[in-house]
Formats: sequence, C-alpha cells, structure tokens
Amino acid sequence: MLPPSPVARYRVLYGDTDQMGFLYYANHFRLFEIGRAEWIRARGLSYRDLEAAGTLLPVVEAQARYRAPARYDDIVVIAAAPAEYGWATVKFQYVLTHEGDGRVLCEGYTLHAFMSRNGRPQRIPQEVLALFEQQV
Amino acid sequence: MLPPSPVARYRVLYGDTDQMGFLYYANHFRLFEIGRAEWIRARGLSYRDLEAAGTLLPVVEAQARYRAPARYDDIVVIAAAPAEYGWATVKFQYVLTHEGDGRVLCEGYTLHAFMSRNGRPQRIPQEVLALFEQQV
Amino acid sequence: MLPPSPVARYRVLYGDTDQMGFLYYANHFRLFEIGRAEWIRARGLSYRDLEAAGTLLPVVEAQARYRAPARYDDIVVIAAAPAEYGWATVKFQYVLTHEGDGRVLCEGYTLHAFMSRNGRPQRIPQEVLALFEQQV
Amino acid sequence: MLPPSPVARYRVLYGDTDQMGFLYYANHFRLFEIGRAEWIRARGLSYRDLEAAGTLLPVVEAQARYRAPARYDDIVVIAAAPAEYGWATVKFQYVLTHEGDGRVLCEGYTLHAFMSRNGRPQRIPQEVLALFEQQV
Repeated sequence: MLPPSPVARYRVLYGDTDQMGFLYYANHFRLFEIGRAEWIRARGLSYRDLEAAGTLLPVVEAQARYRAPARYDDIVVIAAAPAEYGWATVKFQYVLTHEGDGRVLCEGYTLHAFMSRNGRPQRIPQEVLALFEQQV
Repeated sequence: MLPPSPVARYRVLYGDTDQMGFLYYANHFRLFEIGRAEWIRARGLSYRDLEAAGTLLPVVEAQARYRAPARYDDIVVIAAAPAEYGWATVKFQYVLTHEGDGRVLCEGYTLHAFMSRNGRPQRIPQEVLALFEQQV
Repeated sequence: MLPPSPVARYRVLYGDTDQMGFLYYANHFRLFEIGRAEWIRARGLSYRDLEAAGTLLPVVEAQARYRAPARYDDIVVIAAAPAEYGWATVKFQYVLTHEGDGRVLCEGYTLHAFMSRNGRPQRIPQEVLALFEQQV
Repeated sequence: MLPPSPVARYRVLYGDTDQMGFLYYANHFRLFEIGRAEWIRARGLSYRDLEAAGTLLPVVEAQARYRAPARYDDIVVIAAAPAEYGWATVKFQYVLTHEGDGRVLCEGYTLHAFMSRNGRPQRIPQEVLALFEQQV
C-alpha cells in the first residue's frame, strides 16, 4: 500500500510539552489521531459521520518510536495512511516530521477494529473499504 | 458556608508539566475536578451515579488564581467545598496546597448548572441539596 | 483597547472531548494559549523568542465562561487580544466561536506577569509594549 | 525477570475520557508513566532525583494493546516492572486492570534510553542497575 503522506500540520503548544522541553510522549498519539482523521477527510468522508452512521473505530493497539524530540512552537508535519486492513480491522501508519528541517520525529501505527454501537465487530463499511482499495 | 477542606492528594506527572517545569495552568482545572468529585464521594454520593440517574453538572464558569508553581513529582493537596448554591446551580471553591511545605499553589472556583440529560436546567436533586445544607 | 479578533482555528479532537461529548472545560484554556501565541505571532514576534530572550509570561489568573459546548470535529474560531496592561502585567481576552454557525462557545481571560528567568517581576520589554500601544 | 506487580491505583477523570465514554487511548501512557515512577519509588529511589542527578530517561518506543475500555470513575490498578535492560536502556512492562472486576484493560511497554543532560547516551547508574538486578 502507499506510504504515509502529509495530511496535516500541528504546532506544539506549551501545554503539550513537559519539563524536558519536549512534546510529551503520550501526546504524539493525539497527533496520530489528527493524521487518521485528516486522511479520511481528504478523501471525502469524516470519522464523525462514520460514527454518526453507527461505525466506531476503537484503537486496539498503538505504537510509537521516537526518533527526535519536537519542541515548543515547532510545526510538526503529520503523514498518515492505512497500512493494511482485514474484514473488520485497519492499521494506520504515521510519520511525524519537523517542518523546519525535515527530520523524522516519530513513527508509529494504530490498529483499529470496526465496531457497531452495541460493541460488536462489524465489517468495514463499503464506502470506507473503497478508500482503502484505492491505496495500492 | 464551610471553607474548602482537603479531599484528595495528587502527584504531579511529567505529562502534567510544561517546559517551564511547572504544572501547566489548564491542568489545575483537572485537579479541581478531582476536588469536587471527592467532596461528593466523601459524603456518600458519586458524580457518576448522579449522571447515571439523569443529572448532569456542566461547568458554566471557572476561574483559577495561581499563587506558586507546582512542580513535577510534587504532591498537591486538593481542598474543595461548595461555596454557594441556587435552585439549579452550585459554586465549588478550591484551594491547592503543596503537601511538603503547606504553601498555597492555586485557588479557584467552578460554577455549575444542574441539567437534565435533554439539556434543560433542573432543580438540585434532594439528596444533593441535603449535602449542601449540611455545609453551614 | 480593541476587542478580540480571530487569530486561529482549532478542530476539536476526540481526545479533547469528554464523555458528555463536549470539549472538556480545562481544554478551553489550551485554546486560549493558542490565541495569545497567535496574536503575538501575527504582529511579528513569537512567545518562543521572548522566552529565549529571557522574558517569561506565567499565568497569574485565568477565567472562562462557557456559553455553549464545542463538540468533536467542530472547528472553533479563536479570537484574542490584550485587554489591559500594567508595567509588568498583561491581560489577554478571548472569545471562542463555532465556525459553522457563529455561536459564542466560550469567553475568558488570562492575566500574566512578565518575569525574568530568575523568577523576578520584569518590566514589559519595549518591543512588546509597542504592540500593546498599537491596540487603541 | 519478575512480571509486573501493582504499584499504583488511578481513578479515571472526566477529563481523561472521550466521547465514547472511555479512557482516551493516549492517556493510558500517562498511567504507564505513573507505573514506572512508582515502581522506582517503591524501591527507594525517585525519577525526580535521578533527573536532578543528571540522568534522563526519555522514551524511545512505546506500545499499548487495549483489551477492554476503562470508564469514568473506574479505578485502574497499575502494575509495572522492568522487563529487560541493556547497558544504557531499560524496557518497562505494564498491565492495567480494573479494580472492580479484575479484568485486564491494557498491556504495554515503554523502552527508555539512559541519557545525560547534554543528550548523550549514558551507562545505567549503579544504584538503578542494582534495582534491576534484584528483579530475577
């Protein structure tokens, strides 16, 4: 499938940093959230609408590898793309880079289950599947 | 009414601090949340149960005055108490102090509306009113 | 002085909401932070540079009044402006509105002290004062 | 090495949840932070003191697998332990369980580098190494 491509920019807040002066490690997963939401939005759907239509996408697994620190006021470029999918799951991949110098700051993935509102696994909706199938 | 009294302790996380090395200003309001929840719990009710029974308590106004910084790993003593109430509102007051040296770190309040699940103002439930009336 | 004018837009993350489905009350203060940083940046300075040059702007007091909830994926328009200043303090004012329908979601302020790196009060730097003086 | 054992309890805040009503996925990493800090503290050291003495422990990699959701006001039992270590790295493992019913909510790890204040890799301090060597 296609590698992650830039979908959003995020400027690091004071409140995102920790006393090391770096973007706190857990907060990178907030940027991953932006990444997958904007990847979907760029293709004409929105996660909000999916949820309103009864499809939830809880995270089953998440991982990040930290390459270099992001600092206060840095602009982080968020690249995202689905990496693989099954009948009821999808794995998104992310690369965060520093806008100023292009350094890779963080790479990671999130694995999601498609779930109905009552908590049961659910086949990927056709309109979403179509998006994934275009990614080859 | 009675002044705020200690209801909880909170140890400042790395992720709570910012690059100044202090508890980020917005995060003090998380400690206020702990304060009002524990004040209620200490009196035999729980906010979770109130909500499950249909009473929501959204914040209408919030204020904090920062006296001294809380640092990483510091233990903050959270004192809370209702300061005043109307037929459908309550104001909680908070004082955060440093456990080690007793310094006041932050004071503030939150004003809440009692609301039903459909978003309409709602009279204070009798069991909650009884708690407030004991505070004189 | 001039009233707050739009300086930034912020899309509400899943991670910003709470189980009521609303932007958590403490997180509005993160948007206030964006507001004052972008107000300064729009005038050719940056808070990062101020800090690097030895001027810190810790928050002394903060208040928010919540008018209407911001929901997941909503775009919030952040308006900000200095409201008043003394020789070593400045008060910023904020108005958050819903981009879709223009409703006011939240209003508030933050009061800041100008402080040197060693923690002592410090006169407003001349270049910053010049910005405030243009706001009449 | 010894498996993770309980080192702390954490009550889920309103502000930790998202609109699904669950502890937001990124926030589990905050609980992991509590886990490793308390594991160290239970053995007579503190991460704060390590840092003050010049040893930093930035996160190099982090992973979580989510088994079941933690909800508002739930008490989460945090179990932690070092899983393996090299001359300048340590991997901590975590298990989060629901205090009420004992269900596993989340498992994960964080990989850390020992680093000096100037950013260079650093051998594990002797006093920390001693703690790890007791874990067999």
